[in-house]
Amino acid sequence: MGMNDQVAKPLDRLSGLLAQDMAAVDGLLQQRMASEHAPRIPEVTAHLLGAGGKRLRPLLTIASARLFGYRGDHHHLLAATVELIHTATLLHDDVVDESRQRRGRPTANLLWDNKSSVLVGDYLLSRSFQMMVETGSLRILEILSNASATIAEGEVLQLSAAQNLRTDEDTYIKVVRGKTAALFAAATEVGAVIAGATEVQIRALRDYGDALGIAFQIVDDLLDYGGVAETIGKNTGDDFRERKLTLPVIKAVAAADAEERAFWSRTIEAGDQREGDLEHALELLARHGALEAGRRDALDWAARARQALDAVPQGDLRDMLADLADFVTARVA
Amino acid sequence: MGMNDQVAKPLDRLSGLLAQDMAAVDGLLQQRMASEHAPRIPEVTAHLLGAGGKRLRPLLTIASARLFGYRGDHHHLLAATVELIHTATLLHDDVVDESRQRRGRPTANLLWDNKSSVLVGDYLLSRSFQMMVETGSLRILEILSNASATIAEGEVLQLSAAQNLRTDEDTYIKVVRGKTAALFAAATEVGAVIAGATEVQIRALRDYGDALGIAFQIVDDLLDYGGVAETIGKNTGDDFRERKLTLPVIKAVAAADAEERAFWSRTIEAGDQREGDLEHALELLARHGALEAGRRDALDWAARARQALDAVPQGDLRDMLADLADFVTARVA
Repeated sequence: MGMNDQVAKPLDRLSGLLAQDMAAVDGLLQQRMASEHAPRIPEVTAHLLGAGGKRLRPLLTIASARLFGYRGDHHHLLAATVELIHTATLLHDDVVDESRQRRGRPTANLLWDNKSSVLVGDYLLSRSFQMMVETGSLRILEILSNASATIAEGEVLQLSAAQNLRTDEDTYIKVVRGKTAALFAAATEVGAVIAGATEVQIRALRDYGDALGIAFQIVDDLLDYGGVAETIGKNTGDDFRERKLTLPVIKAVAAADAEERAFWSRTIEAGDQREGDLEHALELLARHGALEAGRRDALDWAARARQALDAVPQGDLRDMLADLADFVTARVA
Repeated sequence: MGMNDQVAKPLDRLSGLLAQDMAAVDGLLQQRMASEHAPRIPEVTAHLLGAGGKRLRPLLTIASARLFGYRGDHHHLLAATVELIHTATLLHDDVVDESRQRRGRPTANLLWDNKSSVLVGDYLLSRSFQMMVETGSLRILEILSNASATIAEGEVLQLSAAQNLRTDEDTYIKVVRGKTAALFAAATEVGAVIAGATEVQIRALRDYGDALGIAFQIVDDLLDYGGVAETIGKNTGDDFRERKLTLPVIKAVAAADAEERAFWSRTIEAGDQREGDLEHALELLARHGALEAGRRDALDWAARARQALDAVPQGDLRDMLADLADFVTARVA
């Protein structure tokens, strides 16, 4: 991910504190992605799970459960469930986006084929449902099945919003809530539910996850245009080349004059991109302060995430979750 | 589907008897495939649901519940759930197989794109889980989430078994249990469970669905090579062109001499297909009586389906379900 040491600290501290739990989650993932009949399933899944993901979502579930003193072991099942849903969506996203790289390695659709990515994704999603059922909690099943539907809905919405210059910030936030924040919010909410937290506390954890997820995605979208300061991110311009309307461009389009609008229309709507267009897009973002404004939005959402935690017990875990909100935005802070 | 009147009778009788229930199921499907945010979802789903499918799986759920005198309305939810799982797998299958036609109409991946088919399929699968949760029965959630995982596992197994001449009849049955029979068996089992049938009866309905599903898929695979007698089926030779190792070819390969083996190896394993190869494949199937032997297998499974029903209450519904087994095989009987 290329974060510097200072920035990575809150995540490292959280991972360190919850290392035993996370080892149990990894064990479950290994065990459950096995398939007696179809060896391709663990091959493809291991490629993704082994690719150095941050395990941020399962960590959120474990932290939320521990925050309320949970002592059982269902939080491991839930954390693994959340990671499997996430892995399934990554497999399908790479097919949809025709991606060739993920976390610095070739994608599964490139190493195997689109078929394997679609079907193994389906398998992992179904496995995740099997694991939820084992918790025996209908409330948790409701939260996670809602999240799963919201994710898919957000992705479909993104398809129709892409390449359409009329997409506004409201639609953008809806897409982001679906494709990213829904799983963050469910991850934290189910941790609180399984631990028997109060309704107010459950709501607080859900709000925290929602705001954290939105901040996370905005930052990701800023980094795609290089971020605000010098940062090491993924390859600049992927979203531009894929004609995705993300927050920086939405802000620049809203402030565009006729000539600028024609530029966005040609490059994003019509998909007619030429040498130097990305550089011109970056100039337009700078001209209208779009990355700077996006950064302020991300910091706002991070502050909301912090604030939501006021309703939950004080302590190391709460502090680390609060710091996580800073960690997420530090990449553009 | 092009069945003649006599053959269609058992299905028509069942649909007629359960018309009110099926109308309620259709209503639920319409309502649940809606999406406030993403209009593409109902468009794509309606294209498939409206395409004149037989609604065989939801009919099995309704019939199973009614067989045990069920009087609630959860069987509608369950039947709709089963149809949504089926629709989701069709959407993904068409992407995986790169199909251009389904039920005589262009496929969704052709009308929209692969992206929409993948993501709308994910949405429908998630929606189906949401609907199951509404029944409040953990046992039903377990049955249907297991079925969903088994379907995906069967499809992945098929990927690796395809184009591999060592695939034997055992592997074929495993694939068929996954991709087809798992949902048939779950459809009948959950109907019996929701109606409070005894464990013996639940088991009987599950066995019925399993055997019916296997018979159904074998027949489908025979028809792909034209079937045994004059029948109107889908385009002959699709499986051959897609290099799928289905029962007829597995039987012909098992009986092949060296020269025949070389033919199958070239056309199926290496995928080097030339003018006249399909005709030669059909000759080899005929030489070894492969379609005839496959037909006997289908009739065996249909007989097992009938037999399983011995354990359930006598009456019109039981008779119709038994006749359905004949209906399924009548296309090659």
